[in-house]
Amino acid sequence: MSLTVVGSVAFDALETPFGKREKVLGGAATHFGLSASFFTEVNAVGVVGGDFGEAEWDVFRRHHINTDDIEVVADGKTFFWSGRYDYDMNTAHTLDTQLNVFETFDPKLSERSRNAKLLFLANILPSLQLQVRQQCGNAGFVAMDTMNFWISSMKDAVIDTIKAVDCVIINDAEARQLTDEPNIHKAARALMDLGLRAVVIKRGEYGATLFTKNGYFAAPAYPLESVFDPTGAGDTFAGGFMGYLASHDSITDDVLRRACIYGSVMASFNVERFGTERVDALDYSEINQRFRDFKSMTHFDDIPFERVRAV
Amino acid sequence: MSLTVVGSVAFDALETPFGKREKVLGGAATHFGLSASFFTEVNAVGVVGGDFGEAEWDVFRRHHINTDDIEVVADGKTFFWSGRYDYDMNTAHTLDTQLNVFETFDPKLSERSRNAKLLFLANILPSLQLQVRQQCGNAGFVAMDTMNFWISSMKDAVIDTIKAVDCVIINDAEARQLTDEPNIHKAARALMDLGLRAVVIKRGEYGATLFTKNGYFAAPAYPLESVFDPTGAGDTFAGGFMGYLASHDSITDDVLRRACIYGSVMASFNVERFGTERVDALDYSEINQRFRDFKSMTHFDDIPFERVRAV
Repeated sequence: MSLTVVGSVAFDALETPFGKREKVLGGAATHFGLSASFFTEVNAVGVVGGDFGEAEWDVFRRHHINTDDIEVVADGKTFFWSGRYDYDMNTAHTLDTQLNVFETFDPKLSERSRNAKLLFLANILPSLQLQVRQQCGNAGFVAMDTMNFWISSMKDAVIDTIKAVDCVIINDAEARQLTDEPNIHKAARALMDLGLRAVVIKRGEYGATLFTKNGYFAAPAYPLESVFDPTGAGDTFAGGFMGYLASHDSITDDVLRRACIYGSVMASFNVERFGTERVDALDYSEINQRFRDFKSMTHFDDIPFERVRAV
Repeated sequence: MSLTVVGSVAFDALETPFGKREKVLGGAATHFGLSASFFTEVNAVGVVGGDFGEAEWDVFRRHHINTDDIEVVADGKTFFWSGRYDYDMNTAHTLDTQLNVFETFDPKLSERSRNAKLLFLANILPSLQLQVRQQCGNAGFVAMDTMNFWISSMKDAVIDTIKAVDCVIINDAEARQLTDEPNIHKAARALMDLGLRAVVIKRGEYGATLFTKNGYFAAPAYPLESVFDPTGAGDTFAGGFMGYLASHDSITDDVLRRACIYGSVMASFNVERFGTERVDALDYSEINQRFRDFKSMTHFDDIPFERVRAV
């Protein structure tokens, strides 16, 4: 099934303890799209400036991502974000944000993008997310991300958008903030009560957890001895998750579980190099090997304890 | 196989957002022993004062724990700890510590305790741990805990003790502090390099991870909507882990994995009530049901992704 993503396409300047890049391809729709492209056909909806060059388009082309709905504002500049990470890779320190053409982003969906069976609303203004969702009447499974900025400044709009989708994929701090509930399991239940089919809570180095109506699934993170650059890990997770779902005709709890693992697999690759470098160069044998690694690191035999203590 | 534990037996005063207890049975050897007693025969080695009463001994008796090596100092008082937890249940705020008879604790092991096949050295002075370990020549699998206080004040002694055991069971902060290594996977590898067979790192609400020579296993925590009292959770984990190992003739990686799950099962019960209340009242059907719950919340089918993208 086809999959549409709406979100940012950007240039990032990145600085980590392991090195520095002045200008690499980034943005939520980029990371998501690349990751999802290994599993399904992807339509990307976004906006870039005249500075977006052939090298960047080539990355999308290589992954057969439909970029017809990435608008080019020839006299504008592409969204630019600059950030630094210290050894605690969980927190990005923003050095500079230049919204540029993204400031007035007005997603325009072609019929092809509107007719996708799955839709991912990356982190943009909640009312824009809702407007896009309403245009995609054929989408049978819609997921969204959001961020602390929207939750603190317009929580009602975020909630309205959540009520119109099937799944939220957010991090634990966002889940707590959205529900005013410190316990993550209660927070997930409160979100489910808004009418969702699934809630995925990303917990960084601790993995991801999936909540469905009758199920709970805990996926660990891949045990990495060094995280090179975490930028885009969350969107790469969502891309693997949604892309894998899109490769199935029906979305059961079992499929959602494996989607969580494929999301974790893709995110674990993303952080091994700067920007999109690692995912751009991935092949299927690497992806499936890491999927099997996840299986082996979570597997145990279901042998109940039989001893009856002498009383 | 029989199992000996050396550690504190105490009275605790506890205050959590959910209630208060002035004086409940506690201590590492107590929590460990109760938990392990569901799986094997346990010898507890410790010291108490004349204030330790029949109600306390009854708890040990009910669980068929051999208390011959719990010394009674008739004119002394039992170790007393008082602590408070806020809504962030990960951090205990110590209000009062009265070591009492525990201050001069000099473990005296009977032949029965010395001949146990498994030994757990709960958190006591590292040199005492080492001395006990050396008395137990028949112990084929020895595990230990420690704490930040010993690591910062006598790291060399902690390392010497680690070199004499097979397994450490510690929390993530302690693993980082011991090895000066912020990455938990590198920290575990550095500990393994001291000659260990297994390292178990407890991560509170994020579960526990097991490192062996050739294996890595991630066990999630049980999804609890409220943690009532986390006191003793780590020792209860260790008790389930070591108790389960003691119920096996040979300790393979598969057995270690299931031991991690049984440890997590027991710890998840421990935090549901104050002190030992919940584990004291447990039955096997509850334990095995929760073991199956862990299986179902981590299971996914090992189906590799088959689609080959048209190029």
